[in-house]
Amino acid sequence: MEYVLKIGGSVLTDKNKEKTLSEDFDSILENLKGHENGVLVHGAGSYGHPQAEKHGVKEGSYQGVLEVHRSISELNTEILEKLSEIGLKPVPVHTSSIAYRNPETQLHLDKLSGILDEGFTPVLHGDIVPHKDKGFTIISGDEIVAKIEKQYSTGKAGFCSSVEGVLDDEGNVLDEINSMEEFTDKGMKATDVTGGMKGKVKQQIDEGVKARIFGKDGLEDFLEDRNPGTLVNPSPQ
Amino acid sequence: MEYVLKIGGSVLTDKNKEKTLSEDFDSILENLKGHENGVLVHGAGSYGHPQAEKHGVKEGSYQGVLEVHRSISELNTEILEKLSEIGLKPVPVHTSSIAYRNPETQLHLDKLSGILDEGFTPVLHGDIVPHKDKGFTIISGDEIVAKIEKQYSTGKAGFCSSVEGVLDDEGNVLDEINSMEEFTDKGMKATDVTGGMKGKVKQQIDEGVKARIFGKDGLEDFLEDRNPGTLVNPSPQ
Repeated sequence: MEYVLKIGGSVLTDKNKEKTLSEDFDSILENLKGHENGVLVHGAGSYGHPQAEKHGVKEGSYQGVLEVHRSISELNTEILEKLSEIGLKPVPVHTSSIAYRNPETQLHLDKLSGILDEGFTPVLHGDIVPHKDKGFTIISGDEIVAKIEKQYSTGKAGFCSSVEGVLDDEGNVLDEINSMEEFTDKGMKATDVTGGMKGKVKQQIDEGVKARIFGKDGLEDFLEDRNPGTLVNPSPQ
Repeated sequence: MEYVLKIGGSVLTDKNKEKTLSEDFDSILENLKGHENGVLVHGAGSYGHPQAEKHGVKEGSYQGVLEVHRSISELNTEILEKLSEIGLKPVPVHTSSIAYRNPETQLHLDKLSGILDEGFTPVLHGDIVPHKDKGFTIISGDEIVAKIEKQYSTGKAGFCSSVEGVLDDEGNVLDEINSMEEFTDKGMKATDVTGGMKGKVKQQIDEGVKARIFGKDGLEDFLEDRNPGTLVNPSPQ
């Protein structure tokens, strides 16, 4: 496994418009060509967040669980199709099927390496997750990336986001962030039940893994090891 | 977990007609009311077998993997919706996400009990499965039932099939079958890449688990412990 990459729902889809893929996704696809030896994770964007909010899935109700899972699976199917058109052999790994919370999130990720060994590219996604004493809650792609990086230590975990990185008060991209105390929340306006930029950083810090956050124009740099955006680094030397 | 039940693709769908649910499914639903504390598994029937044959997925090619998974997931979605209409809280567990072959089939089933504890009913399905050195192959609902029964020992594993049980040479339903040597293959005419009645029996015998095979009219008897159809019993006393 060479890398683990989340393509944010906010860059994949138009978050203010239900179930619409963004035009940016085409340039992302262009960059992913030939990079089959990694794990992809995608957010839900407009395919999941409005549904999750509407039905209160975040709070654990059953109503809407089916709709949210179906809607996200629909996005997953569309992404798989696009990825196969650029020559990858993507296969879905539905997070809800491998996840359980009690209350810590357990993800059964062992077979990802087996799938990669066969030349296929696993594609996971934000999803519903069974949660002890709470029914179902939502798991974000951010947490999935953190768990995969924790288990596989690729040294190359990344988030292709709708912003260029973590921004300081003046809107400049930080080179590195080491703790939540340094964090400046900014510019996350659209609905995001899974926590936006803050949640993304927190998940990596909580798991103690390094990850890089960058915009769509940083994806090529990320894949070619040129270090775009902000490095989340919970253990600086 | 009180039971594990496979609803055969051949009874769920019209196997000779692509993507059509059968009318029999309504009576099955009627019987399942109130039986939320079990695991359901469904076959693919006309939602998967024609696609798997067409693309040669059984032999491990990539072409068609996406189509087969999508088609089966579509059936799963329809079944979930019907089950929720009768008051169950069904949740999908996509078998391809929890399965790996090396070459023995490994299924990660631990969280099924957690899902049941929350009052939800897990619904698995025949699916594609990553297979070491072979890409992807097909896993049948029959094998899934055998693995679940092996792990959870419900004492109540069943197959609701399009026939009344295992038939002898005269077409009579056998009370019990203990080995493959006793088996008489009969009447399986429509496309079934996963082996029909013979495969169903063999999977249980291979795993050393008991299971009951019956027709749709036997489902109520099965759920009420009245022993319909044929008992597959690999270790008779």
